Amino acid sequence: MPCPAAPVSRSMGSADKALEGLLSTYHDLNNAFVPRVPGPPTPLEFLQYVRRNQPVVFTGLMEGWGALERWNDRYLREKMEGCDIDVAVTPLGNADSIVSVDGVEHFVKPYTSSEPFSSFMDYIRSRHVNASSTPPSIIKYAQSQDGNLGKEFAALAPDLPSSLAFADSALLSTPDAVNVWIGNSDSTSALHKDNYENLYCQVLGKKSFVLLSPLEGICVREKSLPVASYDSQGKVAVEKGQSVNGWPSVDPDVGHCGKWWGKARPMRVELHRGEVLYLPALWYHKVSQEEGDEGICCAVNYWYDMDFEGPFYSMVQFVRDCAKDCETLEGGDEQEEHGSR
Amino acid sequence: MPCPAAPVSRSMGSADKALEGLLSTYHDLNNAFVPRVPGPPTPLEFLQYVRRNQPVVFTGLMEGWGALERWNDRYLREKMEGCDIDVAVTPLGNADSIVSVDGVEHFVKPYTSSEPFSSFMDYIRSRHVNASSTPPSIIKYAQSQDGNLGKEFAALAPDLPSSLAFADSALLSTPDAVNVWIGNSDSTSALHKDNYENLYCQVLGKKSFVLLSPLEGICVREKSLPVASYDSQGKVAVEKGQSVNGWPSVDPDVGHCGKWWGKARPMRVELHRGEVLYLPALWYHKVSQEEGDEGICCAVNYWYDMDFEGPFYSMVQFVRDCAKDCETLEGGDEQEEHGSR
Repeated sequence: MPCPAAPVSRSMGSADKALEGLLSTYHDLNNAFVPRVPGPPTPLEFLQYVRRNQPVVFTGLMEGWGALERWNDRYLREKMEGCDIDVAVTPLGNADSIVSVDGVEHFVKPYTSSEPFSSFMDYIRSRHVNASSTPPSIIKYAQSQDGNLGKEFAALAPDLPSSLAFADSALLSTPDAVNVWIGNSDSTSALHKDNYENLYCQVLGKKSFVLLSPLEGICVREKSLPVASYDSQGKVAVEKGQSVNGWPSVDPDVGHCGKWWGKARPMRVELHRGEVLYLPALWYHKVSQEEGDEGICCAVNYWYDMDFEGPFYSMVQFVRDCAKDCETLEGGDEQEEHGSR
Repeated sequence: MPCPAAPVSRSMGSADKALEGLLSTYHDLNNAFVPRVPGPPTPLEFLQYVRRNQPVVFTGLMEGWGALERWNDRYLREKMEGCDIDVAVTPLGNADSIVSVDGVEHFVKPYTSSEPFSSFMDYIRSRHVNASSTPPSIIKYAQSQDGNLGKEFAALAPDLPSSLAFADSALLSTPDAVNVWIGNSDSTSALHKDNYENLYCQVLGKKSFVLLSPLEGICVREKSLPVASYDSQGKVAVEKGQSVNGWPSVDPDVGHCGKWWGKARPMRVELHRGEVLYLPALWYHKVSQEEGDEGICCAVNYWYDMDFEGPFYSMVQFVRDCAKDCETLEGGDEQEEHGSR
């Protein structure tokens, strides 16, 4: 659908001007790219990035990790023999995303099934091994985010540090969760943000991130949405009485409408085997992936609690509050979008 | 003058609500007092405070400093013998403050004179030594802020570190300026803010700070004002065509009007001999002082450039932009204030 024309007759209010000024000041003062620097950093070096809420890729950080040295299809199956894992199942590879149900946008969660690790690996690798060009009707992704390295993937824990020493010292804590992610290029994580300082470590394959700063919450049209879930057949079932707040509705890979998206400055970065992305708290990210030679894409991430003290969190909430008012003024084309999804 | 009644009939707009929410979120998440902790901190410990833009008093940090061990009236005169210093001269001890000129508020700078250090010390100490109860018609304060330790006070430089190692490492720089301040209780610095990370080291006497976070820029009624200067007789001369922007007009020690001042949470802290206040960038501060046994109040401060990267600076500017609109709505009692000063 072509974008509806911007409502040119509406004059820009002072709140809009202030929001525009915020974005242009921020963009003038900050990098338009994600730097790559040799790691591991010292705690002090790492805290400089945390302090500035600036993403960075550390190279060399994973040297000597068992996961980087040993993980491949055969090794993983050996270690995980007899283990079941939780698998997110969706029709389109779209876990946690906005889907239209009877013409109304819903926040839709994947169906979760438990299955033997080996059969999950057979499924994931078949796309690569058989080089089939059409995605299957059901897409699977091992993406449980509840500290699964200490649970269903406990057999792999000896191959990874339980926490990252430089981050422990800088952030004065240990990770809230360490998670293993295994999938293939059929799965994509829709744009979202987390209340965590995230260290994302690529083991096999490649991930591609689109990143937007917390201030660009202005541009991503956050919505409050009713909640639904896929069932095992890929049909959507609405969860009555449930809703999510502040879920970004923009897809940075699709042509977009609305004056605010045009002011955003998305950054793109590819994360390769052995590299670690520091994804600062509250940054919006969309993540797509590509399997490597082993036929899988595999990563591990460390989630550290973000710091709610200081002015950062309060001010980000404030900016989003201000943006809500401007969204309301844009209501006209919101309506059209609803009907077209 | 009693406060004019708040305009109760005016309903609160959404921008006002967002600003109120910002302050209450910030206050809920941050200390209402300035902690005292043993120093010196490690670079990493110091950066935790910088990161959170949180003030703190470090005790024990100045142990072994020549200034703390040796500075007294006699020693300072000996070292500074034959040296002239720049002295700020005002009728009320009010360097850099708002003064009404023919019914119009101006930003008024002190008169600066150069005089022998010894005669300046005679002047400053006479109030203490003679225990006179009425302030003289002319108040003097050595407060040149141009890195005076390397200039007029160079004779004292061997008694101080040229920079603070923990701050150099944390802030990745050396100080932009190191300044010596000498005065007595007749001088007060009106509420203002600086674009610097400030480490304020008390050598003799005591300073009392009133502190307000950068977000409380909402509450301090920043104004754009024409500029004037005192002359040597304490008369005000307007500097045609000059103006300052964003100067806070609130005096936190006086009863105040306006809905926003009521939402502020000023913090007070006393800085004693041997203590160091970390005053984070963009914090508003009013500073009064008391001479110690030597009859003078003497401090040294280290100014490190603030970091304009990351979201902090951009967001603080944005909050102040938003507040400007709300100030405009309060215009009614602004006018009354002008007339009554």
